[in-house]
Amino acid sequence: MPTRASAVVQSLFHFSRTLSSKPTTARISSRQPIRKFSIMDNVVNFYSGQPPLNRVSFQRSDASKLNGYLPRAKFMLFLKGNPLVEAGKIGTPLFLDYAQVEQYLAGGYQSVPESVTDARAKKAYESIRLPNTLPTLLFLGIDERLAPKGEDLHAPTGVPYFALDASAIGLDLASVNGEWGDARASGAMMPAWEAGLFAFARPLIDWNFRHKFCQACGAQTYSLWGGWKRNCITSVEPVEGKTCFSTTGLHNFAYPRTDPVIIMGILDSTGDKMLLGRQKAWPKGMYSCLAGFIEPGESFEEAVRREVLEEAGIEVGPVRYGSSQPWPYPANLMVGFYGRAQEGQQIRLDLDNELEDAQFFPREVVAAICNSASGSKFTKDDYKQLDNVTKGKVDESAPADDYAHFTRVPPETAIAGVLMRQWALGQHAMHLVSKI
Amino acid sequence: MPTRASAVVQSLFHFSRTLSSKPTTARISSRQPIRKFSIMDNVVNFYSGQPPLNRVSFQRSDASKLNGYLPRAKFMLFLKGNPLVEAGKIGTPLFLDYAQVEQYLAGGYQSVPESVTDARAKKAYESIRLPNTLPTLLFLGIDERLAPKGEDLHAPTGVPYFALDASAIGLDLASVNGEWGDARASGAMMPAWEAGLFAFARPLIDWNFRHKFCQACGAQTYSLWGGWKRNCITSVEPVEGKTCFSTTGLHNFAYPRTDPVIIMGILDSTGDKMLLGRQKAWPKGMYSCLAGFIEPGESFEEAVRREVLEEAGIEVGPVRYGSSQPWPYPANLMVGFYGRAQEGQQIRLDLDNELEDAQFFPREVVAAICNSASGSKFTKDDYKQLDNVTKGKVDESAPADDYAHFTRVPPETAIAGVLMRQWALGQHAMHLVSKI
Repeated sequence: MPTRASAVVQSLFHFSRTLSSKPTTARISSRQPIRKFSIMDNVVNFYSGQPPLNRVSFQRSDASKLNGYLPRAKFMLFLKGNPLVEAGKIGTPLFLDYAQVEQYLAGGYQSVPESVTDARAKKAYESIRLPNTLPTLLFLGIDERLAPKGEDLHAPTGVPYFALDASAIGLDLASVNGEWGDARASGAMMPAWEAGLFAFARPLIDWNFRHKFCQACGAQTYSLWGGWKRNCITSVEPVEGKTCFSTTGLHNFAYPRTDPVIIMGILDSTGDKMLLGRQKAWPKGMYSCLAGFIEPGESFEEAVRREVLEEAGIEVGPVRYGSSQPWPYPANLMVGFYGRAQEGQQIRLDLDNELEDAQFFPREVVAAICNSASGSKFTKDDYKQLDNVTKGKVDESAPADDYAHFTRVPPETAIAGVLMRQWALGQHAMHLVSKI
Repeated sequence: MPTRASAVVQSLFHFSRTLSSKPTTARISSRQPIRKFSIMDNVVNFYSGQPPLNRVSFQRSDASKLNGYLPRAKFMLFLKGNPLVEAGKIGTPLFLDYAQVEQYLAGGYQSVPESVTDARAKKAYESIRLPNTLPTLLFLGIDERLAPKGEDLHAPTGVPYFALDASAIGLDLASVNGEWGDARASGAMMPAWEAGLFAFARPLIDWNFRHKFCQACGAQTYSLWGGWKRNCITSVEPVEGKTCFSTTGLHNFAYPRTDPVIIMGILDSTGDKMLLGRQKAWPKGMYSCLAGFIEPGESFEEAVRREVLEEAGIEVGPVRYGSSQPWPYPANLMVGFYGRAQEGQQIRLDLDNELEDAQFFPREVVAAICNSASGSKFTKDDYKQLDNVTKGKVDESAPADDYAHFTRVPPETAIAGVLMRQWALGQHAMHLVSKI
């Protein structure tokens, strides 16, 4: 569907309003080594591959464990999805310490009341935050860079990290020497470790913020499991005359969502050209990989074939997985594939009318743009144009203009940029591509 | 987290209460050829790989197109997630025709009122169903098996399919010679084409049924886009004193969810043994692959490593994608990987306490059970036991018993069964496995 698909394709890369003096490739190559496995085992994309924290997810239900972490923790704050950053440094998260946030924590998490003894009922109270007016406090995990994981995985000794929703907090920015960043610009400009942290904190803060009511019955929801679950309030507080079917059985009401999106570098039948498209609202000259949301009842490979047919009229044969990338705007998982078009296909754009143009571009052309200094640079006006897509301000009836010339590609911090470079420049994991 | 993880692992395979006389392998091998690509291009799992319909998703917003399909359509009916089947034939969907359901359709979909002229406002009315008391009518797509896709992709000539939620319909089962099936049992016993249809209709019917209220503001929601979207009612009907932030900008409030789950065949460092686990509540003797939900901010490969560490204490090195499978209970996407454990690892189960046991089993042992006649058969009591897990009736404090002996594996209709057989029996796409 046009509206949603536009969102996807638009989200294939990120844009910083403030141009970074540090080129994208430098940011990537400056990544710290990954803790447990070589970076070459798999393609590692921005926002992932830097397991920034030991999530000790099995402790989320244990209020005493989580509360025990608070006094020595660092806190990442968010206001409407935007992270707290150092004043004047949009790409540098400002982590606060316990003394700076203690007044907003209300003691952290509550334990199961002694009056609740039934095993199943107890679960509704695990690491709970009530009343609902308390700001969301999200347990992220333990930073073990300086305190490596020891034998006792139940008692990690590194630095605990939490995220805190500052929407209802009158934070004095001057006193902490901070400012509110911009979600996309700040995320794209953070160092890799901080970006990885941001990429899993933001979707959860956002989900807690936007999931205040039960989809099943319309009652309020409450936070539990250290911010990783929300239940219908009827689980713990009787609401007159109301019972809710979300409180029994297995379901996905209560859990954060992660929306899988396929994104694909489609080669022509010779393998020497790649299918790239552009939307009318994009900055001048930019083309990118086709993409779309997975629908229920599809495998990835089927979704790849359906989307390419719908967007460009091209039938795809063999399909191969490349890599994946979490994308926190708001909570996507980009899944990158390569595919090869059947022979004798003609591009057509009149089915879902998603794209303004799509073409098979020769490898040399894509490589030249990937290698050029200006090929992944965008002006402030370009970012504004793309922000307008995100904010729904684009006039979709605007006439096409002279954007036909292909001069720019997404940066390497977006999986689309990686897929294009892998193929065009022969970077990373080409053994996977060669399977096509 | 134990509760949710249990759901996942439990959902790795399906169970039919009525034992099928037709073995699993026969069902798989009887699949019809896939329309556009060879089955050998990728691993094709049950519930997928049979693109059963041309979804023409770009027509979902066009009420006149959808209404035009109704008179020659077939309808798949659901009651609380269970499909209508032929009386006495739990695995045979009973499709009704227009004359049998017309009285429940209320004319199908409504077009945009003429009074609405703003381009953005119009979108809120595309293929709308109001009032909310109307049963969900879901456009599935066009069956082109007998009427192959022609040149005009805008005017497919095959048989249209819709799904209809019968919750508020007093359907006379006797008059149509039908009965309500069982979601899992019926799904598992359907022929492949019908199973593929069921696997994308059920999650959407379910999502419409359980998403009656806006997560952002608690107001009611309404169906549009032929059943593929739900908006906050404040988009089209003023609710006194209420505005909702879900009605502007890009977000994922309104769309069906698909929860990605990683499931993995983890080999030991020699590649000759596979790590399999079992939960206390499972049928006697059954072991399966480890699995878990993707969390925000993770790539697939990172999720594989985290889950295996949490569930079994094993650190994983290289990871390779295998295949994917939609899983409609309620709306998962199973993503199958292989991985190889680091050397010198010891299994431990005391972290998330998810598993009763986990072991590395030699290839010969897994192969023997996969090949045995009884290795994927389960008694009615076994199914009841697993159903109790789904329904939340399991007493998790029950003592472990003598389930330690490994005698059964999931069937090939579950991706866990496929992953195990690929490795143990050398079936399908072993070139991917050999990359590990």
